Amino acid sequence: MEKTLPFTKQDALRWTAEHPTPFYVYDERGIEKCVTDLYKAFAWNEGFKEYFAVKALPNPAILRLLKSLGCGADCASVPELVLCEKVGIQGEDIMFSSNETTETEYRTAKAMGAILNLDDITHIEFVENTVGLPDTVCCRYNPGSFQITNDIMGHLYDTKFGMTLPQLKEAYRVLKEKGVKRFGLHAMLASCSLDDNYYPNLARELFRLILEIREEIGVTIEFVDLSGGIGIPYLPQEKPVDIMKIGAMVREVYDQVITPAGMKVALFTEMGRYITGPYGYLLTTAIHYKHIYKEYVGVDASCCDLMRPAMYGAYHHLTVLGKENAPKDTKVDVVGSLCENNDKFAVDRLLPRIDLGDLLVIHDAGAHGHAMGYNYNGKLRCAEYLWKKDGSFQMIRRAETLDDYFVTLDVDEEFSKQ
Amino acid sequence: MEKTLPFTKQDALRWTAEHPTPFYVYDERGIEKCVTDLYKAFAWNEGFKEYFAVKALPNPAILRLLKSLGCGADCASVPELVLCEKVGIQGEDIMFSSNETTETEYRTAKAMGAILNLDDITHIEFVENTVGLPDTVCCRYNPGSFQITNDIMGHLYDTKFGMTLPQLKEAYRVLKEKGVKRFGLHAMLASCSLDDNYYPNLARELFRLILEIREEIGVTIEFVDLSGGIGIPYLPQEKPVDIMKIGAMVREVYDQVITPAGMKVALFTEMGRYITGPYGYLLTTAIHYKHIYKEYVGVDASCCDLMRPAMYGAYHHLTVLGKENAPKDTKVDVVGSLCENNDKFAVDRLLPRIDLGDLLVIHDAGAHGHAMGYNYNGKLRCAEYLWKKDGSFQMIRRAETLDDYFVTLDVDEEFSKQ
Repeated sequence: MEKTLPFTKQDALRWTAEHPTPFYVYDERGIEKCVTDLYKAFAWNEGFKEYFAVKALPNPAILRLLKSLGCGADCASVPELVLCEKVGIQGEDIMFSSNETTETEYRTAKAMGAILNLDDITHIEFVENTVGLPDTVCCRYNPGSFQITNDIMGHLYDTKFGMTLPQLKEAYRVLKEKGVKRFGLHAMLASCSLDDNYYPNLARELFRLILEIREEIGVTIEFVDLSGGIGIPYLPQEKPVDIMKIGAMVREVYDQVITPAGMKVALFTEMGRYITGPYGYLLTTAIHYKHIYKEYVGVDASCCDLMRPAMYGAYHHLTVLGKENAPKDTKVDVVGSLCENNDKFAVDRLLPRIDLGDLLVIHDAGAHGHAMGYNYNGKLRCAEYLWKKDGSFQMIRRAETLDDYFVTLDVDEEFSKQ
Repeated sequence: MEKTLPFTKQDALRWTAEHPTPFYVYDERGIEKCVTDLYKAFAWNEGFKEYFAVKALPNPAILRLLKSLGCGADCASVPELVLCEKVGIQGEDIMFSSNETTETEYRTAKAMGAILNLDDITHIEFVENTVGLPDTVCCRYNPGSFQITNDIMGHLYDTKFGMTLPQLKEAYRVLKEKGVKRFGLHAMLASCSLDDNYYPNLARELFRLILEIREEIGVTIEFVDLSGGIGIPYLPQEKPVDIMKIGAMVREVYDQVITPAGMKVALFTEMGRYITGPYGYLLTTAIHYKHIYKEYVGVDASCCDLMRPAMYGAYHHLTVLGKENAPKDTKVDVVGSLCENNDKFAVDRLLPRIDLGDLLVIHDAGAHGHAMGYNYNGKLRCAEYLWKKDGSFQMIRRAETLDDYFVTLDVDEEFSKQ
């Protein structure tokens, strides 16, 4: 299945006429539809809430949009908390899902009334001794292994996140003893899963567990946070998940396990990639050819703008604007300008013949894209735009300047006075 | 061989009493000795110059130190050029070794009088048509494969850098025709090599080539840029290169090939890692334990401070200060706080038992360390200090603040007015 774009070359040319590439553009309509569908899929659950994983796209315009659609936020640091505060996301609309957390981070989160999601049993004592335990606490579970369909996700044994089953039970027992009143359960047992069974199977595991915890520990868990983990089809041959089906399947599990137990549980999600990933695009211009032992096309973006291919070897689909229907008969590496050979947006990719000046769209860059930007080789991070439903094109983050790049050098008097 | 530190726990405690971890500290004495030895090793070569690869450690205090020791700078972007300008490195003391270069970059480099090192033959036309060709031009060579000792570095076929042999010869022919007067030859055919034969073998290849080019094209190459590629021993069992031996071996090759031809060639190097890598340390504090399916020690630095382990799986040695001689009997993962499982400074590493509050030193972080810092999960990049020969401890870059993190959001009026 060829991946399509919601905008045309004409749209892009209108944008680039005033705004130099490279830049990110986010499709407001796409994000809104995604969130609306998610809420529809879980409308049956009283209290359902999506806590957008801010780390995926920490931009206030995006957070305001998501807030207007009913979302809260999942934060992992003080800057993310402050970002939320500034756009009016507050109190229990914030889930603070961190690890190796500092006192300052817990203090800030607690002061904002965020739900603390404890990654480890030792954090009970740490929170108690530093900022004091709040009334509501969530605990993160790591079962070590987990079966989605046929694949057992054994690698969970090797992840640093969450508590073992005995620790989890002990954590609830201790938290109750220390006066905590409301409880949640969190687990993220997959990453970028396109299997519709992931959430239903995760829900089954967690629902059974809260019954067990109620029975064994006498703690009633009010909300279950399924976290993120739902993937997006980066590859053209991959199929997106069916969120309505997922919602219905989770409901089935809920009706089998929770309802007969006479309980009510609110469901939370912490999706980031799923919400904004497919609706963000990195636009870049072809600026050089190179014909040596392979064919290269050089573009004006680099892995400093989008790190995923360099760090994970991730595939991002490429469209050469205006050549959507041209034959893909040229095998090229599409590369950025970093002095590192992993700065490649595509390796041995069959693409239409690219002319210098052609605009390339890098797909699925709306999550963990700009957010992972860096300044290696003195590269300045690029701007972000929101393509709004009314057709307007709004700058929601400007590109970095030399002054920004040098800002932390203001302690160097000799440097600053120049 | 156990890796040692030039400072003690007492030194570090004095620093951390006033400056919170995590931070980078660079040992001025170590850097100075390294550069002095390098210049000694190549003192036989008239015109020898080290062009420090700014990308490794783009800090003005470091650049000033290196300038005072006789170094120039290898730059790859406008911000790096401006950084050099501000510390007084200028003209042909700058080598502009870029790729997928923009017109603005060439314009800035040329205006500063930097030597342009062309990565590709098409850049001759590009430079000519945009900013005009300067009098001095260097060309980057990529032979496709290269033999150091027994290993053939065949991967050069798959790197995006440099020109093929026929292109290189054509490039010099065309450049001469277009009136370029002075020529250089550049090649980087290894990365992080600990083989003392690398530079001598590279020099032999390039020296023979310049004779061939003089004979075939009638172009006399004045300088040969051996670039970087000399490694450092990240692992305790690795041995550092012997720079005096390398210098002597290159001299031997020079005397065999260049001298009999009646030529004089200046040698340049573009080392970054070798110059500052071993003399930079990331100091971090142990803040949490975690005992689940494995043992974890959480520290207050993350891969946002040092990306190399996350991106390359790179080994960085760890010292627990004050426990240098304690038995290494505890196997742990040392992890940062990022919501990513690759945020690990050490995996299954045998270390002395770590107590909370212990100071950990991450070795060999002086190159491509802070320079590759990023802000994922809203993490703020840490400060850098220079530990000077007189014992003083000078902040040479402050840590990022919330204001810095939010600075490119000043286009968002609603956000900024809060």
